[in-house]
Amino acid sequence: MQTIYHDKYKHNMTDGETASRRLLEIAAASGTREGVTRLPWTAEHRRAADVITGWMEDAGLSVRMDAAGTLCGKSDNPDGKPALLVGSHQDSVPAGGAYDGIMGVALGCLAARNLCDRIGDYPFALEILAFADEEGVRFPTALIGPRALAGTFDPATLDMRDADGVTMREAMTSFGIDPAGIASVARRKQDVFGYIEAHIEQGPVLEAKDLPVAAVSAICGISRHEIRLSGETGHAGTVPMAGRRDALVAAARIIAAVNDAANRVTDLRATIGQITVRPGAVNAIPSDVRFPLEIRAPDDPVREAFEKQAKEIAKVMSASSDVTIEATRTYVQPAATCDPTLTGALKQAIATAGIDAMTIPSGATHDASAMIDLCPIAMLFVRCRNGISHRPDEFASAEDMTVAAAALSNAIGLLAGDRMA
Amino acid sequence: MQTIYHDKYKHNMTDGETASRRLLEIAAASGTREGVTRLPWTAEHRRAADVITGWMEDAGLSVRMDAAGTLCGKSDNPDGKPALLVGSHQDSVPAGGAYDGIMGVALGCLAARNLCDRIGDYPFALEILAFADEEGVRFPTALIGPRALAGTFDPATLDMRDADGVTMREAMTSFGIDPAGIASVARRKQDVFGYIEAHIEQGPVLEAKDLPVAAVSAICGISRHEIRLSGETGHAGTVPMAGRRDALVAAARIIAAVNDAANRVTDLRATIGQITVRPGAVNAIPSDVRFPLEIRAPDDPVREAFEKQAKEIAKVMSASSDVTIEATRTYVQPAATCDPTLTGALKQAIATAGIDAMTIPSGATHDASAMIDLCPIAMLFVRCRNGISHRPDEFASAEDMTVAAAALSNAIGLLAGDRMA
Repeated sequence: MQTIYHDKYKHNMTDGETASRRLLEIAAASGTREGVTRLPWTAEHRRAADVITGWMEDAGLSVRMDAAGTLCGKSDNPDGKPALLVGSHQDSVPAGGAYDGIMGVALGCLAARNLCDRIGDYPFALEILAFADEEGVRFPTALIGPRALAGTFDPATLDMRDADGVTMREAMTSFGIDPAGIASVARRKQDVFGYIEAHIEQGPVLEAKDLPVAAVSAICGISRHEIRLSGETGHAGTVPMAGRRDALVAAARIIAAVNDAANRVTDLRATIGQITVRPGAVNAIPSDVRFPLEIRAPDDPVREAFEKQAKEIAKVMSASSDVTIEATRTYVQPAATCDPTLTGALKQAIATAGIDAMTIPSGATHDASAMIDLCPIAMLFVRCRNGISHRPDEFASAEDMTVAAAALSNAIGLLAGDRMA
Repeated sequence: MQTIYHDKYKHNMTDGETASRRLLEIAAASGTREGVTRLPWTAEHRRAADVITGWMEDAGLSVRMDAAGTLCGKSDNPDGKPALLVGSHQDSVPAGGAYDGIMGVALGCLAARNLCDRIGDYPFALEILAFADEEGVRFPTALIGPRALAGTFDPATLDMRDADGVTMREAMTSFGIDPAGIASVARRKQDVFGYIEAHIEQGPVLEAKDLPVAAVSAICGISRHEIRLSGETGHAGTVPMAGRRDALVAAARIIAAVNDAANRVTDLRATIGQITVRPGAVNAIPSDVRFPLEIRAPDDPVREAFEKQAKEIAKVMSASSDVTIEATRTYVQPAATCDPTLTGALKQAIATAGIDAMTIPSGATHDASAMIDLCPIAMLFVRCRNGISHRPDEFASAEDMTVAAAALSNAIGLLAGDRMA
């Protein structure tokens, strides 16, 4: 499909093959056998930026790095039209894979290359973005680049320190960017047409449905709750079962019942990933149990209704074990609903390729989660093997990336009113 | 009641008042405001042995310490009759209370004092024992004194080291006893009539039933099982509920169902006191969960049947969560059934005092658990406040200890065929 548009840069490889080659190359520039580790504002980031600059220039884009470390490759825009932004992040988790984030940058560059001869006629300029930091593993924050663009970056963040005691300000300065300039990175809403991000799914849904790609309906809202149960300890031998106030038994009933309830709500996820038990001896009845409950849903009212339901379950279950309960919401992040127009274009492009055009929610946060404060967003998920991400064996196939690059290119054309296919 | 027998040593205090005073005194000799800490073969043990020697001599007993550190106070026995042993342990857990163990020694000494004028006519000698170590908190073993008497002491134990790197052999030698002599501490069965131990209940049953004392039916058998569940981790947002293989959800269902099942079995206790979850992140589906299941019952076949039932529950529940399970029995200790004759004498003595003569199982291990390898055993439980033990606020009242001392004295008389009351 993609071979239709880019005579000038045509190669003997599909876009997926080019993407595969480029992703392996950039992984090799900062990875080891233990996977890719590419943290923001580091030597690895610098090497990656040099490689990405090549991808952008190959697509005929003019490249600059903004004060937050976002590499921006933009099509010529003498008319000052608003920009359609397409991108993702360059950074990885420690010992991560070669696709998470960076694949979206690579596919954006290929779409730009596909469209380079026509973009001048579009009602928007095309700008490919490679954000410095989405994962948030170097500093205890995340999404620096998109927040800077959206004008939601908190300058206090610059004083945060990484594990070596280096502040973000120092890291940026050593990297060669001026953090004082971040405020001026913020875009005006009228200068931005929208933001589209391609990303590996990081989940098993597309594989299960045998689909290479899907549009995203929304990025799930997230809430986290700390549940604290207080019963009474006692000797595991001397205290009869009747009359025990076992906080772990109460927790077990809550965990099972919340799981059952979550299973009945479409697209909702409820997870308990940790649990601590006191006193924590093999022969002591647990008196104090704590666990975090994380709830995600693409629809905030659905999530909020489930929060109430889960609290009610926890109340009933703890009362039945004669255990007291405290539940505190420790974190909340609203859902980011994808824009119908941008998403519609992605779906139409997918359908045009003869593929069932589904939308699925994104359970994970993405750069798009912060970009929504600036402009309409859309996302394209690409199938990844076994739903695996954040590991060296993370993988998306060249075939699927070919489909994704074509869908991205065609969607951009559709948004421009250009019936390309 | 006890005032009937001991004209010679009569005081203006009840036995319970004497016990209270003595227990506070011996606690003060080795305790702080943070509770009593009296580990075996230490300076605190030595001070306690000196105090207990006084209690024994006050009862007309001849005192010696055996090679395991057990203080033995014996009535005159020119006829070489077998000995009725009455005792408990002198040691405490760190920051423990003033009653656990040592109260049984104090009550034994008071019973001996009550009976001192008549014991010469009994078909057995009376010997009060204060074992060095029952709690097993200094070295990774326990019940040294009764095992030495029963001939079940393993000499390899002498090489075990405490937290300071001191071996048990060194500890005993510094204490002034000769560990090489432990083998000769073993009694011949024909030299022992039986063993009776008074102990605080360490549970809430007597308080709930408003009873000062009860005879023990059996010391529960114990088995411990390590349960390992293996599912699959994944991102808490990107993996839909359907198809998750959440090991913590499986564990929760097992814990709740095992608890329900245990509640339906008389006198059985099933406890999960610890749980570990991997990977253990708020936003990661648990793939690996481990927990120990401890089962106690006064009847071994009942416990063994429940082990099978619990395994079946675990199998069904883990299969329903698509999680694999491994269960290993890591420890087993058979139940120690109390002797009907000794226990019958305790019950008759209790009933004679106008108290409902119940038997209840002991959920905890006691010196009697090891003494059963030597001779018939019986135990007398004394109500303790709020069922609390192993804490500074552990408490048994003088009134209840008066009842206990009388029951012990009268039971010994009954066993001797002496209708005293």
